[in-house]
Amino acid sequence: MKVKIDKKYEDYQAIWLDEQCHINAIDQRKLPFTFEIYKAETVQETCYAIKEMVVRGAPLIGVTAAYGLVLAAKANENSSIKKMEKELHKAEKQLLKTRPTAVDLLNAVKTILNVFTPTKTPQENIETMKRKAVELAQQIINECQTIGVQGLKIIPKRQCKIMTICNAGALATVDIGTALAPIREAHKQGKKPIVYVNETRPRMQGARLTAWELFNENIQHYIITDNTAGSLIKEKKIDIVIVGADRIVLNGDVANKIGTYPLSLLCKEHNIPFYVAAPRSTFDETTKNGKDITIEERSSEEVAKALSINDKTDTNPRYRIIHHYQSPNINIAFDITPAKNITGIITPTKIIKQPLEKGIKEYLATVKK
Amino acid sequence: MKVKIDKKYEDYQAIWLDEQCHINAIDQRKLPFTFEIYKAETVQETCYAIKEMVVRGAPLIGVTAAYGLVLAAKANENSSIKKMEKELHKAEKQLLKTRPTAVDLLNAVKTILNVFTPTKTPQENIETMKRKAVELAQQIINECQTIGVQGLKIIPKRQCKIMTICNAGALATVDIGTALAPIREAHKQGKKPIVYVNETRPRMQGARLTAWELFNENIQHYIITDNTAGSLIKEKKIDIVIVGADRIVLNGDVANKIGTYPLSLLCKEHNIPFYVAAPRSTFDETTKNGKDITIEERSSEEVAKALSINDKTDTNPRYRIIHHYQSPNINIAFDITPAKNITGIITPTKIIKQPLEKGIKEYLATVKK
Repeated sequence: MKVKIDKKYEDYQAIWLDEQCHINAIDQRKLPFTFEIYKAETVQETCYAIKEMVVRGAPLIGVTAAYGLVLAAKANENSSIKKMEKELHKAEKQLLKTRPTAVDLLNAVKTILNVFTPTKTPQENIETMKRKAVELAQQIINECQTIGVQGLKIIPKRQCKIMTICNAGALATVDIGTALAPIREAHKQGKKPIVYVNETRPRMQGARLTAWELFNENIQHYIITDNTAGSLIKEKKIDIVIVGADRIVLNGDVANKIGTYPLSLLCKEHNIPFYVAAPRSTFDETTKNGKDITIEERSSEEVAKALSINDKTDTNPRYRIIHHYQSPNINIAFDITPAKNITGIITPTKIIKQPLEKGIKEYLATVKK
Repeated sequence: MKVKIDKKYEDYQAIWLDEQCHINAIDQRKLPFTFEIYKAETVQETCYAIKEMVVRGAPLIGVTAAYGLVLAAKANENSSIKKMEKELHKAEKQLLKTRPTAVDLLNAVKTILNVFTPTKTPQENIETMKRKAVELAQQIINECQTIGVQGLKIIPKRQCKIMTICNAGALATVDIGTALAPIREAHKQGKKPIVYVNETRPRMQGARLTAWELFNENIQHYIITDNTAGSLIKEKKIDIVIVGADRIVLNGDVANKIGTYPLSLLCKEHNIPFYVAAPRSTFDETTKNGKDITIEERSSEEVAKALSINDKTDTNPRYRIIHHYQSPNINIAFDITPAKNITGIITPTKIIKQPLEKGIKEYLATVKK
């Protein structure tokens, strides 16, 4: 992705392994204010990065976990193969505990552990796992590229007004993005898309990350409060909504950032096409229904922070300081959009249309994991 | 309303005229951090208070404007009655320009100017206008009181889970509130309501003002991000939604804080009752359809502020400072909820049920302005 720093453009991916086989990732907690690279040299540091959202976005979480397993293997370079295997399973457990909703995490961990071969040496396994993890990252990028090409079909006109929520961009997928892929592609072809970015409370991934990516690409965009989407959709000021996904299950229900479900309902009410864009790794082959997806609840601090309830005191003695308090809050990170509200799912090889259940079955049969 | 300051409770109204005939109002921009009284001694200062949202909430805006006209009259205590009349019309124009959506402003200004009598002395007019303005404030409070009684009918059970947006409490109506009136009443009767407060971006009136009122009254409540309402309603974790209004037109369409319309749609989809609570002054007798309501757009700073895009720079030289930018945003303050999405309107004398158009006609015929 293009990144504008100090008025110059540089090219970055959201995550990479360096020559010492350490994880480097753009620290997404700091954007768009400062550009800082977070380094993880241990599984613990990798888990921290996922949990604390140094990295986020379902496909990127998957790649991070894959790299985390490489770190675990590397730390046991000089152990016995038995010890390495044991340590890898310990790392697997730790990584799977970090965040529960994005299925890409589970899928990536499986993919990497599948190439572990107890009959080979630790060094050989490290090489194989590393190769597989890097390949996985590249596969996500390639899939995003073709999601862009597929998605272009639903953006036929110039100056198409596209709404999105959260960040389903390069920062969520190593590079290019899912929901942002068709937008980048349309921009590349001179179609001048206009993007309406839901700011996405509480962590503001829309305002902080998606707007930053669009700014870097010089794509026209407006930030809106999440409350504003309803008015714009009702007044047909939006042509299409494209969102990413954290998990797509067999009946076509989709878990994505909280606030996605209301957008889908608004689109249904006003006949605006509502699309989900995702790579293969976001499909969950073992869950049939959205109601069986585990929804993460995060700390109440994330919600309270914006208000700074605890630190905004005016010490001017003319004013009376109110006894401090903090109202409890609820911080659910994802919601479930039912299949019936979704116009289609943009995959790397085709757009799955209704009925989604049938289309997903066919799609999964044609692509290898 | 009860206000807890330094661990002690005191009783306040949102606005009052003091002995010098100056306006005193709780400065709502500072809540819940500090408790400060804003004083307005001129029409300019009154306009500033409305525009900058020192005071907000449709009924309170009306009362503030009424008091502003008293200040204008008072400033012309020693003028000729002709000059006073001219100055009052100047003040009227300035006040009506402050904010366009709440019809209470227009209604209150009309009410006060109606008692001006060119055949009387300036001093007599000041007295009459002041009496009328204070009466108007008291009338709003009385109406809120009976809205509470009427609204109790729709909260029959104990521990009713009620969702609201923005602040339609005492801070919006001098005292008691509209949407919060039935909640206060239920609480008073020991029914232990549980309130889910949409934080209400961009200005956070829910998290800052409604949560503060509920805290002061010791009513159980949770702040949620506006994005979270969809999940709670979908999962039937909410029994009823009650909101305030900025303008109710003849066909039953309602202008209220942006984000209200999506809530109404969610309620309709999941068969959750959706009620609007309002005093007489919020009804607009001259507008037939919601699409004819002027919707205020406010400064983009309000949206950008939460992100602090301009002032969060990390000066640690290890990090690379990203060239500052600010994405444009859209800041629409209100949306229109169509009559068809509304279960009923809680007025001071009855709950208007569907068809709202007929009910509103009957209601307006039975109450004097």
